[in-house]
Amino acid sequence: MAKEKKLVESITSMNEDFAQWYTDVVKKAELVEYSNIKGCMIIRPDGYAVWENIQKELDRRFKETGVENVYMPMFIPESLLQKEKDHVEGFAPEVAWVTQGGLETLQERLCVRPTSETLFCDFYSRIIQSHRDLPKLYNQWCSVVRWEKTTRPFLRSAEFLWQEGHTAHATAEEAEERTIQMLNIYADFCEEILAIPVVKGKKTDKEKFAGAHSTYTIEALMHDGKALQSGTSHNFGDGFARAFDIQYSDRENQLQYVHQTSWGLSTRIIGALIMVHGDDSGLKLPPRIAPVQAMVIPISQRKEGVMEKAHELCEALKAAGIRAKLDGSDKSPGWKFSEQEMRGIPIRVEIGPKDLEQNQAVIVRRDTREKTVVSLDELGARAAQILEAIQCDMLARAKEHLETHTYEAETYDEFKEIVAEKPGFVKMMWCGSEACELKIKEDTTATSRCMPFEQESLGDVCPVCGKPAKKLVYWGKAY
Amino acid sequence: MAKEKKLVESITSMNEDFAQWYTDVVKKAELVEYSNIKGCMIIRPDGYAVWENIQKELDRRFKETGVENVYMPMFIPESLLQKEKDHVEGFAPEVAWVTQGGLETLQERLCVRPTSETLFCDFYSRIIQSHRDLPKLYNQWCSVVRWEKTTRPFLRSAEFLWQEGHTAHATAEEAEERTIQMLNIYADFCEEILAIPVVKGKKTDKEKFAGAHSTYTIEALMHDGKALQSGTSHNFGDGFARAFDIQYSDRENQLQYVHQTSWGLSTRIIGALIMVHGDDSGLKLPPRIAPVQAMVIPISQRKEGVMEKAHELCEALKAAGIRAKLDGSDKSPGWKFSEQEMRGIPIRVEIGPKDLEQNQAVIVRRDTREKTVVSLDELGARAAQILEAIQCDMLARAKEHLETHTYEAETYDEFKEIVAEKPGFVKMMWCGSEACELKIKEDTTATSRCMPFEQESLGDVCPVCGKPAKKLVYWGKAY
Repeated sequence: MAKEKKLVESITSMNEDFAQWYTDVVKKAELVEYSNIKGCMIIRPDGYAVWENIQKELDRRFKETGVENVYMPMFIPESLLQKEKDHVEGFAPEVAWVTQGGLETLQERLCVRPTSETLFCDFYSRIIQSHRDLPKLYNQWCSVVRWEKTTRPFLRSAEFLWQEGHTAHATAEEAEERTIQMLNIYADFCEEILAIPVVKGKKTDKEKFAGAHSTYTIEALMHDGKALQSGTSHNFGDGFARAFDIQYSDRENQLQYVHQTSWGLSTRIIGALIMVHGDDSGLKLPPRIAPVQAMVIPISQRKEGVMEKAHELCEALKAAGIRAKLDGSDKSPGWKFSEQEMRGIPIRVEIGPKDLEQNQAVIVRRDTREKTVVSLDELGARAAQILEAIQCDMLARAKEHLETHTYEAETYDEFKEIVAEKPGFVKMMWCGSEACELKIKEDTTATSRCMPFEQESLGDVCPVCGKPAKKLVYWGKAY
Repeated sequence: MAKEKKLVESITSMNEDFAQWYTDVVKKAELVEYSNIKGCMIIRPDGYAVWENIQKELDRRFKETGVENVYMPMFIPESLLQKEKDHVEGFAPEVAWVTQGGLETLQERLCVRPTSETLFCDFYSRIIQSHRDLPKLYNQWCSVVRWEKTTRPFLRSAEFLWQEGHTAHATAEEAEERTIQMLNIYADFCEEILAIPVVKGKKTDKEKFAGAHSTYTIEALMHDGKALQSGTSHNFGDGFARAFDIQYSDRENQLQYVHQTSWGLSTRIIGALIMVHGDDSGLKLPPRIAPVQAMVIPISQRKEGVMEKAHELCEALKAAGIRAKLDGSDKSPGWKFSEQEMRGIPIRVEIGPKDLEQNQAVIVRRDTREKTVVSLDELGARAAQILEAIQCDMLARAKEHLETHTYEAETYDEFKEIVAEKPGFVKMMWCGSEACELKIKEDTTATSRCMPFEQESLGDVCPVCGKPAKKLVYWGKAY
């Protein structure tokens, strides 16, 4: 066994060093391998299968609302990137530039897309003429590049995978409606499939997307109390339309600018999955997103009948609609248990000679380690029930964590104390000035996460400057 | 209607100018829009939906053989690309180079992947230690860049989408087996789903992939008699393993080099779909790959009951498992017919006031324009039958075209005459020397397409040089 990979090495405890725990888990659960290109990761089969499930779920939800997929070039000519002033300022410092093609130096540099607003706008300016051409509801699944200095797998990398939706509408109202609709799709998807509760809200002007009129966000809370921006939806108004001259003739044959949105969710969400649900034994995947939901592990597999029965159980689970696999390798059962736990597979089904005699198997939950002895006659049905219970309980636990780690501050001193001592979200009123926002960041490193849709009042003034309060804001330290 | 797009413009006739016909079809069927990055195309919804169906079908077939998907970085450091001598020589002249990241000049140039052998090899050298780690059967869906001077949508573009599978095996036999297995998957997929018959064979050394031990190919024949290489599968032997030091310890604890394969199929295949099946009215999609299989078109749609019934029919078709849509726009029926034909939708279902009275509808086949009056009570079942017949007939017609355009030459004069006058494949014996291959290319512009698996004998000598013949080769002019 000397050459076998050393899984049994313990991973760092989350309480000891959360960042190291995270790195250990992505590596040892074999989600990611580092590449020798700085900041670029290799997504391994277990990581990519999670992404495929995310894609499948989101893509279906998008298409149900009329969205169509397209593919745009990965390069953007420098002159095109520069057409919208705020946008280029936001992105130019962090893009990779292609300057040579084959053996020749290019006449104009091309940036590798950090996002594709400019390409979609250029495209829309050519294909939209009439109100009959609207709305355009396009999305693409692709990789993008942002030349980051400090990188971490999934959370921040030089290249990452995402989807970016780009829509064009006849009216401002329709664009705003679509912006919110897509944010809701993200939020529902996170709750229903990933068992991650999120806070939905609007970004402050300081935190909004480069070139956007307004940016909406879903913010999730990680196990360490830090926030993770998990998906964003932007309303561009007609700003890009004016910069790119995207006009349509309305029913009265008058030329009008279109109103646009864009919205994106990336492989970053896999970081959230790890940091919301994981524990010191590794990953913990909610059943609805887990590529493998049940691992059948034979005990004393050389004993007569055990392997045959294990195969049979695996097929029975599949017949019940469960994504099941059998670990028939020559590793020890204990090793297999650790692997199944490290990989976050929601349940394992143990079957040994004694179980055979009694026509039973043992289902062990990854989330609680609770064991249930079930009759083989009802294995599929019971496993399905337990998977549903896990999904439900994981969401409930994540919700409880969010609730118990969301604090309220009525004074600035109280705010600073909470930020210093209690990791989580802090709700506090805000006057709306960037000055107070900057002061909070400088004093505490916490940033405004969002102005939640569900507004409450914790007082009439901004605790930082004493001026009248305009909004309740969620603040927090963030990834 | 002045602002409506001008679909009714006729497209160029294929007999008049096949190249222009192709360009007209990709543009007017709205598969592709040109971008303002030279040689890069925008794949529009109707084009991308075809690619999604191709992905779905192939991905399922890959996974059934144990293949897993991963994602590798899009950049390759220059030093890594150079590790395998033949490989870098083949690709270096046509790659795009990133030389700047953010505001800094990179210490080492990165090429945008033209293919990812080097990345997979580097990865495998780190994750393969033991025979227990083999085989590795990885695939990725991504875009690649080859800095081509002359480009055509789908057929040859600076950036294109594809899948690239990369496998590592313990033995040479297993690698060869996998190489052929994947070629067969491509061939079966082309026949069963795309209704494109292909010739399977091995490439000559001159035509094989840069760095490969042997390259296998599927070659399809376009309507104009030109060949299109439609998918390739390479056996690398242990060449890359030696260059990248990918070794495993076998059961006797001896270090051994792995044996590798790679295989790829790209958006180029959409070009084949267009050029095998299309006609002067536009695209013609085989039902199994068509994103929309049936378009319901109401006649006199303002007459009472017509639109309601059209909706009902559309739902009935969907209930029968058919991908159906309703064209309820305010365009004229004639216009809608042209659009449905241009887009290659396999059938349209016409329903007007008279049909209503008689409880019937008219199904019109795109491929033959044949009309069938069907009772509304059996619409779904009849439509499904007709779609199956279309799929079958399209393959039969393509097969007939392939057969009637495959010629045999026993002398070199005969060969030259056929190449000059009869577009298609020419079978001729070959001595195996690159000199004869080059001479044929110089004399006729035809290239060796493959040495087919089904070898025949047309004589004992190579008609070019008179030396003993070793192989029968398919020759042809190619895209």
